[in-house]
Amino acid sequence: MSNPFEENLGQTAANAGVQTPVQFLRHTASVYPEKPAVVHGDYRCDYAQLYARCNRLASALQQRGIGPGSTVSIIAPNVPAHLEAHFGVPMCGAVLNSINIRLDADTIAYILDHGECDLLLVDGQFADVAANALARSERSPAVIDLVDPLGPQDKRIGESTYEALLDEGDPSPVDWRIDDNWQSLALNYTSGTTGRPKGVVYHHLGAYQNAIGDTLAWDMQRHPVYLWTLPMFHCNGWCFPWAITLQAGVHVCLREVAADPILDAIEQHGVTHLCGAPIVLAMLVNAPAEQRAKIPPGLQVMTAGAAPPAAIIEALEAMQVNVTQSYGLTEVYGPCVYCAWNDAWDDLPAGERAALKARQGVPYPVLAGLDVLDPESMEPVPADGQSIGEVMFRGTVVMKGYLKDPEATAEAFRGGWFHSGDLAVKHPNNYIEIKDRSKDIIISGGENISSIEVEGALFKHEAVMLAAVVARPDDKWGETPCAFVELKEGHSASAEELIAFCRDNMAHFKVPKYVVFGELPKTSTGKIQKFVLRQRALEI
Amino acid sequence: MSNPFEENLGQTAANAGVQTPVQFLRHTASVYPEKPAVVHGDYRCDYAQLYARCNRLASALQQRGIGPGSTVSIIAPNVPAHLEAHFGVPMCGAVLNSINIRLDADTIAYILDHGECDLLLVDGQFADVAANALARSERSPAVIDLVDPLGPQDKRIGESTYEALLDEGDPSPVDWRIDDNWQSLALNYTSGTTGRPKGVVYHHLGAYQNAIGDTLAWDMQRHPVYLWTLPMFHCNGWCFPWAITLQAGVHVCLREVAADPILDAIEQHGVTHLCGAPIVLAMLVNAPAEQRAKIPPGLQVMTAGAAPPAAIIEALEAMQVNVTQSYGLTEVYGPCVYCAWNDAWDDLPAGERAALKARQGVPYPVLAGLDVLDPESMEPVPADGQSIGEVMFRGTVVMKGYLKDPEATAEAFRGGWFHSGDLAVKHPNNYIEIKDRSKDIIISGGENISSIEVEGALFKHEAVMLAAVVARPDDKWGETPCAFVELKEGHSASAEELIAFCRDNMAHFKVPKYVVFGELPKTSTGKIQKFVLRQRALEI
Repeated sequence: MSNPFEENLGQTAANAGVQTPVQFLRHTASVYPEKPAVVHGDYRCDYAQLYARCNRLASALQQRGIGPGSTVSIIAPNVPAHLEAHFGVPMCGAVLNSINIRLDADTIAYILDHGECDLLLVDGQFADVAANALARSERSPAVIDLVDPLGPQDKRIGESTYEALLDEGDPSPVDWRIDDNWQSLALNYTSGTTGRPKGVVYHHLGAYQNAIGDTLAWDMQRHPVYLWTLPMFHCNGWCFPWAITLQAGVHVCLREVAADPILDAIEQHGVTHLCGAPIVLAMLVNAPAEQRAKIPPGLQVMTAGAAPPAAIIEALEAMQVNVTQSYGLTEVYGPCVYCAWNDAWDDLPAGERAALKARQGVPYPVLAGLDVLDPESMEPVPADGQSIGEVMFRGTVVMKGYLKDPEATAEAFRGGWFHSGDLAVKHPNNYIEIKDRSKDIIISGGENISSIEVEGALFKHEAVMLAAVVARPDDKWGETPCAFVELKEGHSASAEELIAFCRDNMAHFKVPKYVVFGELPKTSTGKIQKFVLRQRALEI
Repeated sequence: MSNPFEENLGQTAANAGVQTPVQFLRHTASVYPEKPAVVHGDYRCDYAQLYARCNRLASALQQRGIGPGSTVSIIAPNVPAHLEAHFGVPMCGAVLNSINIRLDADTIAYILDHGECDLLLVDGQFADVAANALARSERSPAVIDLVDPLGPQDKRIGESTYEALLDEGDPSPVDWRIDDNWQSLALNYTSGTTGRPKGVVYHHLGAYQNAIGDTLAWDMQRHPVYLWTLPMFHCNGWCFPWAITLQAGVHVCLREVAADPILDAIEQHGVTHLCGAPIVLAMLVNAPAEQRAKIPPGLQVMTAGAAPPAAIIEALEAMQVNVTQSYGLTEVYGPCVYCAWNDAWDDLPAGERAALKARQGVPYPVLAGLDVLDPESMEPVPADGQSIGEVMFRGTVVMKGYLKDPEATAEAFRGGWFHSGDLAVKHPNNYIEIKDRSKDIIISGGENISSIEVEGALFKHEAVMLAAVVARPDDKWGETPCAFVELKEGHSASAEELIAFCRDNMAHFKVPKYVVFGELPKTSTGKIQKFVLRQRALEI
């Protein structure tokens, strides 16, 4: 049957177009040229200036032959140049590869080689490790020093400074070299705990979509003041370089993620929004009272990664900080699942509210598919809050795939869904709740024990600062939980006391058999390295 | 050169997906099932119920063989079924053709034929005209009566009622029949003042994008209470059926657009947002004081079409109503240009603020391209606030084209832009301001006179309710302005008085030479029919 709605109605130059987050900067610079865009120490720039700088960067890169198929890597904290790279690099059609600043030289060399780096931007603080990585690398990228007024001035390893590079460029709007939605925009390496990291490739459409998703999920109005506590190298700062620009907000940069600079910036710049791993939330909660007083009521905090312990959420709520739990992975542009709050829950007791807030929740409105599936049958688990399955994603905010690794891509996408590796239940209200990473689940006497649940119980003890629970092989039970605990300064607790505390708060088979005290090992992104703890547990 | 970023990184079931506004209902029904969705008289329904009803509609249509390539037409005021059709029809893959309720039977018959209607939904109020149209039509669609409790009960011309149709369907989620972003979603006929209307075809992506654009441009947070003063048949209610659903808001339905029902609904339901043509704004401003008192401070009103006279904007601002001027056409999904407010303008005098507010403004962030071009050279006019060119659009929120009219489509899209036919200037801050429709500009002594500017001057006179200015041929000047005026009830003014008033307020060559009093002729969408007035001007 002929269908008149699909005849002579195809795409033309007038009605097609690329959906790219670069557009958000052009838009905001056009509409709000004089609104503040970037704050960094004494530095200020408005949106007209930010746009001009990003055009300079793009045109300077173009003149150096950087364009589609090229890779621009950056090793830097959350400084203005890092933000500019999120626009200037894609505007010239190249791929932005923001490298985790906590990595060792060997891994950085691997990333430069595997990602085929053509140009490297390096902040002085990381000049040594970058020089070391370059010495080991097979690539010879152009190296540009970011000389930040708040960073080291004399650590230079490049042929030029970033400001000199910008001087090579033209501030007038460049003709973007973006051909289609699916063109690659960014390359982000996963922080694999074992083996080499994988290179996750993003496209323009996904970043555009998820930046809008950030805005909608967080119910964020125009002109937020956003503090950069979240590393921009982490899934491109969860797409917030683009989302905050879309909303014509202020990017408050921050070199160091520590309680004092965070709290001072909040007070000084009137911060309204920030994101951070649970460790950042803990910094706010555990700061001295006179520093905590700088936090204004109504501050919006988005957190992701592991669910923050309910105790921390409760403490923040008591300070009238509004915590939005979110969830995602590098492969899905950072968070694209969030715990949408329902005002019908406002009157529940604080503990119940915190437990609801700790759920990962529902998909961003821009995410086409999210479900908890049995990875064998690929059938959804019942929405009973009990049945555990694997969290899976589908849609345009799922990565293009892993760079130069079609096997890993196919494996991640088998059955038509992206497999997260995270185990979760689905509650009757469709909210998902992560129970564990596949490899972190503890199976004791045939029962699944969520390490996260046991950690949550430990966190409720007033002396516990951090807790991680792993499986320890057990002749009788197969596995039993083994807890590693960091205590708060000035507090003390014995293993017996914590075990008794857990017994009062959870099913007995879930209670740790061992509790070990000491500092916990962490990955470069601040995640606790459970594979190290599993090894230690073997040695008890 | 090989580009590793474009190899083995193609679309798969896991990372591709359709961007459709239907997703917003699924999302909101999943996250906020118990939130109120629809209010209509005593009728209430929540999002779970709305979703179930839309699934019933989609599955009933599927069972009747309606799907991709089918057309479902509707003739109805803003009743719940009209909203449901915006989801149920596209969910089954069909095209929604919402017909202007003010059209005559002959034009409706033309639309049913040209649009190849397969099923027609008719509200009782329009049963007679629909029966008349069907008698003239070559199509024999299934006809379904919408029996609205607030409408006529006994006017039935169909084989079934809408509720009986829903009973044929299944409330569980249907499998959408939406294959790609570019699939046709809606068919909206332009209200051509001469000749047959043209059928504008929308796709899922454009509606998805512009609904997000509505939300971002209006800076609208979750859970708005939206009053349906804007006809849903008008560019699909400017995409607000989808935008309000995305934001989990309340759709307050309204059969009759008149001052009392509007003001009563505002008070009764706590309305936060509404849209309407300038005539709706005039209703609010000109209502008796005790009715006007029902308007809460902070009410958000979006208006489009002709710029509302500055005097009306000023009066609304004095009532603490926040007016957002927007602009668009049927061909661009309704408004996709808006007057983004800049708080730096807050302290300007009221008159200057109103003049700024009356500008059409800047593109929605989702619109790729908007400019004012010389239609001959296709070069942008200078942003000097003086040079007049034609407003042109490009991007994914431009229509697919005109149904079965490739010549008109090609003509509208010539040079890679959609030609709006509207003449505008671009101010130095990039805001565009419409000066006239191409055919409405008055050329007197070689000078262009904007009929809108002259109308704006007349509106400032306290006795003037409506004014329209057209060209009248003149031996000496070529053309001169001729004004047609409706006076407010209880007011009077002479032609001489209005001409003198204009002379005090504008360049003398722009002042109307003639002023004619009486009711103005209007099109089915409430636009003043200037072609009728031009004819009358000839007869003076």
